[in-house]
Amino acid sequence: MTTDQAAGGHTALTPEEIGEAYDDYGDFYGMVLGDSAIHMGMWVAHGERDAPVNLVDLADLAQDRQTDYLIDTLRPRSGDHMLDVGCGTGGPAIRAAQRTGARVTGVTVSRSQVAESAERIGAAGAGDLVEVAYGNAMDLSYADATFTCAWAIDSFPHLSDRAAGLGEVSRVLQAGGLFLLTDIALRGTPSDDELASYTGIWSAPPPRPLTELVGEIGRAGFDIVRLVDMTPSARMSGEVMALLYRDRRDEIEARFGELTVSWLDDRMPPYRSLVRDHLDYVLLLLRKRG
Amino acid sequence: MTTDQAAGGHTALTPEEIGEAYDDYGDFYGMVLGDSAIHMGMWVAHGERDAPVNLVDLADLAQDRQTDYLIDTLRPRSGDHMLDVGCGTGGPAIRAAQRTGARVTGVTVSRSQVAESAERIGAAGAGDLVEVAYGNAMDLSYADATFTCAWAIDSFPHLSDRAAGLGEVSRVLQAGGLFLLTDIALRGTPSDDELASYTGIWSAPPPRPLTELVGEIGRAGFDIVRLVDMTPSARMSGEVMALLYRDRRDEIEARFGELTVSWLDDRMPPYRSLVRDHLDYVLLLLRKRG
Amino acid sequence: MTTDQAAGGHTALTPEEIGEAYDDYGDFYGMVLGDSAIHMGMWVAHGERDAPVNLVDLADLAQDRQTDYLIDTLRPRSGDHMLDVGCGTGGPAIRAAQRTGARVTGVTVSRSQVAESAERIGAAGAGDLVEVAYGNAMDLSYADATFTCAWAIDSFPHLSDRAAGLGEVSRVLQAGGLFLLTDIALRGTPSDDELASYTGIWSAPPPRPLTELVGEIGRAGFDIVRLVDMTPSARMSGEVMALLYRDRRDEIEARFGELTVSWLDDRMPPYRSLVRDHLDYVLLLLRKRG
Amino acid sequence: MTTDQAAGGHTALTPEEIGEAYDDYGDFYGMVLGDSAIHMGMWVAHGERDAPVNLVDLADLAQDRQTDYLIDTLRPRSGDHMLDVGCGTGGPAIRAAQRTGARVTGVTVSRSQVAESAERIGAAGAGDLVEVAYGNAMDLSYADATFTCAWAIDSFPHLSDRAAGLGEVSRVLQAGGLFLLTDIALRGTPSDDELASYTGIWSAPPPRPLTELVGEIGRAGFDIVRLVDMTPSARMSGEVMALLYRDRRDEIEARFGELTVSWLDDRMPPYRSLVRDHLDYVLLLLRKRG
Amino acid sequence: MTTDQAAGGHTALTPEEIGEAYDDYGDFYGMVLGDSAIHMGMWVAHGERDAPVNLVDLADLAQDRQTDYLIDTLRPRSGDHMLDVGCGTGGPAIRAAQRTGARVTGVTVSRSQVAESAERIGAAGAGDLVEVAYGNAMDLSYADATFTCAWAIDSFPHLSDRAAGLGEVSRVLQAGGLFLLTDIALRGTPSDDELASYTGIWSAPPPRPLTELVGEIGRAGFDIVRLVDMTPSARMSGEVMALLYRDRRDEIEARFGELTVSWLDDRMPPYRSLVRDHLDYVLLLLRKRG
Amino acid sequence: MTTDQAAGGHTALTPEEIGEAYDDYGDFYGMVLGDSAIHMGMWVAHGERDAPVNLVDLADLAQDRQTDYLIDTLRPRSGDHMLDVGCGTGGPAIRAAQRTGARVTGVTVSRSQVAESAERIGAAGAGDLVEVAYGNAMDLSYADATFTCAWAIDSFPHLSDRAAGLGEVSRVLQAGGLFLLTDIALRGTPSDDELASYTGIWSAPPPRPLTELVGEIGRAGFDIVRLVDMTPSARMSGEVMALLYRDRRDEIEARFGELTVSWLDDRMPPYRSLVRDHLDYVLLLLRKRG
Repeated sequence: MTTDQAAGGHTALTPEEIGEAYDDYGDFYGMVLGDSAIHMGMWVAHGERDAPVNLVDLADLAQDRQTDYLIDTLRPRSGDHMLDVGCGTGGPAIRAAQRTGARVTGVTVSRSQVAESAERIGAAGAGDLVEVAYGNAMDLSYADATFTCAWAIDSFPHLSDRAAGLGEVSRVLQAGGLFLLTDIALRGTPSDDELASYTGIWSAPPPRPLTELVGEIGRAGFDIVRLVDMTPSARMSGEVMALLYRDRRDEIEARFGELTVSWLDDRMPPYRSLVRDHLDYVLLLLRKRG
Repeated sequence: MTTDQAAGGHTALTPEEIGEAYDDYGDFYGMVLGDSAIHMGMWVAHGERDAPVNLVDLADLAQDRQTDYLIDTLRPRSGDHMLDVGCGTGGPAIRAAQRTGARVTGVTVSRSQVAESAERIGAAGAGDLVEVAYGNAMDLSYADATFTCAWAIDSFPHLSDRAAGLGEVSRVLQAGGLFLLTDIALRGTPSDDELASYTGIWSAPPPRPLTELVGEIGRAGFDIVRLVDMTPSARMSGEVMALLYRDRRDEIEARFGELTVSWLDDRMPPYRSLVRDHLDYVLLLLRKRG
Repeated sequence: MTTDQAAGGHTALTPEEIGEAYDDYGDFYGMVLGDSAIHMGMWVAHGERDAPVNLVDLADLAQDRQTDYLIDTLRPRSGDHMLDVGCGTGGPAIRAAQRTGARVTGVTVSRSQVAESAERIGAAGAGDLVEVAYGNAMDLSYADATFTCAWAIDSFPHLSDRAAGLGEVSRVLQAGGLFLLTDIALRGTPSDDELASYTGIWSAPPPRPLTELVGEIGRAGFDIVRLVDMTPSARMSGEVMALLYRDRRDEIEARFGELTVSWLDDRMPPYRSLVRDHLDYVLLLLRKRG
Repeated sequence: MTTDQAAGGHTALTPEEIGEAYDDYGDFYGMVLGDSAIHMGMWVAHGERDAPVNLVDLADLAQDRQTDYLIDTLRPRSGDHMLDVGCGTGGPAIRAAQRTGARVTGVTVSRSQVAESAERIGAAGAGDLVEVAYGNAMDLSYADATFTCAWAIDSFPHLSDRAAGLGEVSRVLQAGGLFLLTDIALRGTPSDDELASYTGIWSAPPPRPLTELVGEIGRAGFDIVRLVDMTPSARMSGEVMALLYRDRRDEIEARFGELTVSWLDDRMPPYRSLVRDHLDYVLLLLRKRG
Repeated sequence: MTTDQAAGGHTALTPEEIGEAYDDYGDFYGMVLGDSAIHMGMWVAHGERDAPVNLVDLADLAQDRQTDYLIDTLRPRSGDHMLDVGCGTGGPAIRAAQRTGARVTGVTVSRSQVAESAERIGAAGAGDLVEVAYGNAMDLSYADATFTCAWAIDSFPHLSDRAAGLGEVSRVLQAGGLFLLTDIALRGTPSDDELASYTGIWSAPPPRPLTELVGEIGRAGFDIVRLVDMTPSARMSGEVMALLYRDRRDEIEARFGELTVSWLDDRMPPYRSLVRDHLDYVLLLLRKRG
Repeated sequence: MTTDQAAGGHTALTPEEIGEAYDDYGDFYGMVLGDSAIHMGMWVAHGERDAPVNLVDLADLAQDRQTDYLIDTLRPRSGDHMLDVGCGTGGPAIRAAQRTGARVTGVTVSRSQVAESAERIGAAGAGDLVEVAYGNAMDLSYADATFTCAWAIDSFPHLSDRAAGLGEVSRVLQAGGLFLLTDIALRGTPSDDELASYTGIWSAPPPRPLTELVGEIGRAGFDIVRLVDMTPSARMSGEVMALLYRDRRDEIEARFGELTVSWLDDRMPPYRSLVRDHLDYVLLLLRKRG
């Protein structure tokens, strides 16, 4: 860095001057670029068409990779009828259907997500395999044993009564059917501010220890087939969320108003430390007994 | 998001209330988490020990991946003697030597990088293969035909006279020896502020079009064996640098002083737009003729 | 099949006679050879030296594969000091040390296993990495934080107090250290005869539901990093055990006496049905908190 | 093992008692579970849906793997018309057709296999590619040069006149066409009882040395393209057959009558020793000259 | 070698005689078979159907491999419309379309190649994806921005005005579209005879240094995305061409007349030395700016 | 081709003229370059250091690939003592030892090959694993059961009495030891000239049908474990030998004299047609019984 350089002009520096710049500011580059090698990183395979060029792109790729991982873990097949509990705007449901040939029914409590899902399904030409409807995970409208498998990606953390949700998914699954569930669990003792940031930002009840969930799983008639700790990815997502919030704060204010960003300004720091220090993120693959 | 939630308390929300929260704020999650699937991303393979948990970790991984890519492109072998022009703090030189068995000599114009390299070499137990010395790329102190191969990673952008640098590397290489070079090239016409941000932040002369470099390569007695455009990775590095600068501004101020961050506050926005809109980043593998 | 064929002679059969033989006895071949294709199976890659040629060989291969799977799951490294709780005759400890470079200390309550381990370690030339000593998993003689990682393969099912065993392993592990545990869990309600066959054959307390273990894990200061259901392999092992017992009954009687085989004759059938209908077999990868 | 344990009760054993149990009975576990590591084996990849859970399942998998190996060796293609000599109940013919797109015509001397093949073809929806008919390998009803390739899996051992079979397949193949043949060959000198067990159980003539077959192959106008010794898999199949016979003897008696099992009781022991000591099992890939 | 052996007879040689033959003529085998091991080489995977059995077959395989490499470098996709400049007899265009689903339009200045392409397209059933027309690369008849990508394989060396060709391809490509170009470049100073052999055999202008082409690329509005030196393959092709010319000289004379072979007899030796000593062969992947 | 082009000059051709050149001479390029795509082939992976640039280089690569294939087929291990019958100049013996750790003893009847092998062993630093001595395959000087495995690459075709050679290798091998043998076999009926070219060029007895060899194998106490037809590679080697002979005839004359090339001029054409039409080339993996 050469901070005495006048804006708009440039005089070639001598090697000695460049050496001094690195002597003085070498650590700066390490702090903002990484210090493993202090050169540009290889963020994606060189030569890829449609390579990501910013952090939002990279986050999209990470989401797609996660969706594929979850599909590869549940492995629905052609002939299956799969329930997607809390399907969001339909992306994972469509991808699961198109990669595997399974039929997928999604439910969400958001009317706007139902509408956006319908659009995405149409655009993807997936209308014969995927449908999305308004539905409450704790009180599903489907008959017993309707589905051969199910998943709930990041939706159980929102439920006020997870036991009820587990009971309902168990009821609508056929015996032997697999249920893939991701959930948030509490580690250690966070502060009140940290907890409030989480419940506020996610419209969710406070996180609980993993053991409570495991007990509810057994009582709902499920065996655990696999459990995978995915906490590092949740921590990365928390960091990315904090950085992108600050970076896009003006856009967010223009879209959601001054009150919202003022509210978020207070909650982002404790939320970031909560995710870093006190949240676990787990995948559970369950099999309905019988 | 439930912005009317009191800090420190939590009342379980009804499914209707959660649905409304997503109706109102669903786009917010997409803006800060990615909107491909609106769930947590898979940033690294689940279950990795030492998984990255923040953006600096991820940048370190990207640098290591780039170093490995460059080693795989140059492919030094046991028996080679390789020159590392602008070797920084020695990380890539050590990795190249330990992965391939080649002997590596690094030069840098920074006295503190010479010192830090010596420490790293000692810690890695690489003293029999790697050495680093003070040296100027445009006036090397080595005899003709001393080296069998060479690389210059992100150091030629600093040179006030690239032709001189190419000539010197050509001189100290044996005939037929390979030289791997990464460089920055200009695309289109940036503003004065954008250019000044670059020359200031990197203590470097202004970037030039690729064709100028290609001409100098030929005149220095090299043939081009391979050229790879790596611009997307440079754009990602620019974005990461801008976000980490804002995130770690307080640390940087504590380390480098108020004047430096004030100076950087002005230059980061035009630097970010320059990288996004006007810089190309290329790898060139050259072979010395004869 | 041609059951009217005289022993010691053979008259060539007509195609019609062979056809009739298959009409009458085709199902027999399917019952004893498998009926997917009714031809010889490919049990191992053709052309392998040292290919398995009987069921004991095949079981040995399955054990080696499991050991490798467990090593790949725990992934000890050079520099680690690993505890093997219930190390048997030392095979897995030696393999883990030789494949990874980690130092391994095994404990067992069997004096003869200590002796046999010492012989195996010597024969494998692994004395600088592996040692085995007499030791009780519920009352380990090692100082706090002695080990960087640990495993217990099929030994916790023997413990009269698993909570004590978990507490001891937690105590001797460093914070953040991984502990790989395999365990048996109860599914449904077996008969008294089935339970007694298990406790007798394995000198073990009766199996319990998985939830009890999960609670004890949390109370011992561990987080669950991964859980994998391996029940199908346990069922295969149970079947193989039952068939090999019947096949090698004479050898077993010669080695252990008439009373033992008489006792086993009564217990093998309920043991086989217990394994088929009521036992789960799980892998748990745990991380010590802190 | 704790043989003094009362059925129906259980008192927790001390570590010393468990240690003594292993001191006394450790070898027993090795005899019935394998003694490479004395823990449960990994019989299949953990987490597989539809994993095999008994020896019949495992034998089915081995048969499917062999069928795939044979397809990969012969490599029929779309456009080929393939003859399956001794096609059994049609499984391999269907699999070959569906994996490669080749048309397959099977022949068998068993009327019930013709019928069962038709059912399987229908269930697999393979009627446009596969057909099965009654036919004698030594007197085929097809015109010269009807087929582009052929296989005979475990059917030539039944033929009273292999030279006639080779001649017929050669006749109905086009010049240059490949013929994949598996056959049994004699090694050493078995006893009369051993030979009689083989000819009786398989309704087959006695096995002959490999050299006789090689001479007949040349005289029938074939060149040998490849020969692979698959004896270890045949020995595994023989062991599995002996163990499953004993295990399922009651089912077999219920299905085939007391006389059959009485007859088999006498022949299984010499059959098992014959397979272990005196049978080779080979694959021959032949090409019709011209 | 035993040169005193009478034609038509053979007396078995003693080991001593064979030893002497190798003492005298061992080097001969190395000169005509390769001397790395002096045994038969593995030219293709043993057991391949349709394996190459002469040098023309091997050259065909090398061409197919190159076509696949070029497809993998340009990576057209379903939805693309690709221009093939100088499409020859249509083979690469058909392969690109059938492997990727892209639509391909080829142009050539040879009326007979247009006709042969049409036949090949019909035979391959590729009429809905591929079409070929008469067209001049320096004056294309297509509207601006007609194509999403393009390639020119070994056709630009024929152009009297490469700058015009680059301009035309740039004009008919959409902004951001990729253009894959292979070209010949001059290295060092060949003799007049060498240059004349090249211009005569290929009906092409003399080769130029690479830098001239790079300048023209920039002026035509392209950025270089990748450059790969493929000179060794060009040298192999030159050697193969020289050897096959001599080997097939009689066929060539029968087909093209005595004057042609007389003309070629003079030009093949300087052409071969030109390719060995003075020609570079490069792949350039370009992206149209904007 | 533009045959009216004056040597030493060049006038740029119009597109029409180039089109006519391809109309007239397009087939020529296909005849000497391959006509699959009529562009340059990809003979090796682009970017390889030390890539082959002529047919001798390519033949060397093919030999190395074959040596590796044979090593992978025999799979000697550390601890084995392997016999190399007819070891040539030692290349394969050295490679087998260095890749596997096995000890290798080579024998040859050529004194000059013994000398050259010693030099190669020294240069490769392989003196502790490899030794080569003068020795006759039909009368080996080693004690019974000296070796654990053996190979004979392209040396048995030279033996006047293959049965004696098989007997000797069987004698010096341990029971169960593997012997990898390559051999030439006769297909159809060649002319006297063709046979004489073979016996003369290779100082070998005339080739025989494969069946004779198979009988001798059995009588020497070997079982066949694998047989692989490698005829296409032998045909490629024959073509390459014929083309390189013509191409390097002057060098060969300078080295071996006019009489030799005159003798070879007569024998190369019938040798080439013999290899193309009448020779099979097989690999046999044998196991010594007992």
